[in-house]
Amino acid sequence: MRSWALRLEYDGRDFVGWQRQTNGLSVQAVLESAATRITGAPCASFVAGRTDAGVHAEGQVVQLDLPAAMAAAQIRDALNFHLKPHPVVVLQAAPAPEGWNARFSAIGRTYRYAVLNRRPRPALAAGRVWHVQPPLDAGRMQGAAERLLGRHDFTSFRAAACQAKSPWRTLDRLDVTRAGERIDIIAGARSFLHHQVRNMVGTLKLVGEGRWTADDVSRALAATDRRAAGPTAPPDGLFLAAIAYDSDPFAPG
Amino acid sequence: MRSWALRLEYDGRDFVGWQRQTNGLSVQAVLESAATRITGAPCASFVAGRTDAGVHAEGQVVQLDLPAAMAAAQIRDALNFHLKPHPVVVLQAAPAPEGWNARFSAIGRTYRYAVLNRRPRPALAAGRVWHVQPPLDAGRMQGAAERLLGRHDFTSFRAAACQAKSPWRTLDRLDVTRAGERIDIIAGARSFLHHQVRNMVGTLKLVGEGRWTADDVSRALAATDRRAAGPTAPPDGLFLAAIAYDSDPFAPG
Repeated sequence: MRSWALRLEYDGRDFVGWQRQTNGLSVQAVLESAATRITGAPCASFVAGRTDAGVHAEGQVVQLDLPAAMAAAQIRDALNFHLKPHPVVVLQAAPAPEGWNARFSAIGRTYRYAVLNRRPRPALAAGRVWHVQPPLDAGRMQGAAERLLGRHDFTSFRAAACQAKSPWRTLDRLDVTRAGERIDIIAGARSFLHHQVRNMVGTLKLVGEGRWTADDVSRALAATDRRAAGPTAPPDGLFLAAIAYDSDPFAPG
Repeated sequence: MRSWALRLEYDGRDFVGWQRQTNGLSVQAVLESAATRITGAPCASFVAGRTDAGVHAEGQVVQLDLPAAMAAAQIRDALNFHLKPHPVVVLQAAPAPEGWNARFSAIGRTYRYAVLNRRPRPALAAGRVWHVQPPLDAGRMQGAAERLLGRHDFTSFRAAACQAKSPWRTLDRLDVTRAGERIDIIAGARSFLHHQVRNMVGTLKLVGEGRWTADDVSRALAATDRRAAGPTAPPDGLFLAAIAYDSDPFAPG
């Protein structure tokens, strides 16, 4: 046995979230069951970014112990075989570098949040977007997003249940772009507080509607009070897009 | 009452196709039921492009009779209310121009076909892409696609059940582009034969895999024999993208 790094894609709609819970099926339980089918032994995985119920992943990273003798492609294919029919797949498997930890070695996390901004509800993108009916001004949202960049106490954008020791985080990127009816918001940081992305998106929506200004966002940030910022955007539009590492197990070569 | 034009989006997975059938739910039945809830009377719709079971639409166009006194936004919202919870929505409603017919006035139809070209099955795009595992060369596919452009007898790419009088069609556009693991194929023509897009895609896949050359595609076309071309690609990746009209009911102003 040795430590392996896995890159995962999953549809969060069918799950109670990443983490095992008593009230339903988790991505973790499905993945660990698949691993157990390979090793015959119980298995404990470590994840780079815990995702909530309904949140999707295009590039989640997980670490777990699997046979050392298997090739990376075999690991990937064997796990994918046992993951069927759940909407979870291993995109890539790689031996974990010495001393590497999926969670603590991560130096960057990127989330994508998708908004469908039109009057009719989504037929094709249901469960994968936040459906917002009032017209949003993406340019205004971008202007306000820039107020959140940098190192701040993000208490105003932090879930009550957040277990992080410090509310200080450094937001490296918060880009708002529109393509037709779709608005995508890309958020990048070393790490995020619980619900931070969804709370920032819920606040930027107020700006896009014209109900808030960029100055209101600055004031909400400065208040360090959750009640000062906007509501939490739904999980549907949120995708964990990528995790960055100094020594990237998935780097070619 | 007057004739209205509707632009629809739907997810084809839940349906036996556009057309009413005895063996399951059709998009047509769902739309006509919604219209009947508004008018209180039976309703007959006309469609620009019939879609098969599992085929999606981003811009289907339908014509039906609805009250003359209602505003376009009211028609759209009332239909969308009654279409719930089916994955069908009216994107736009507009009074049909004098003499306009959703099917016969159409001067162009555009389909998009989405391929996911990677080893792991799709978790997020299941049912919306054709999952092709062998690596495809999109450049080779584009080169072969150009052999099909123009006016030809497309018998080799026509379903046995096709009811069109003539197998001659003019293919205006067949573009193959890759973005990462995704290959999109855009097909444009005044009209298509039954299964023509899926049969062309199934044939181009053989080229992408290196099993066929562009010359093989030219020979298959010249054979005017369905058995000479490649297999039919699955419905999952096919989207009816847009219908073009000389006098476009949805044109602004």
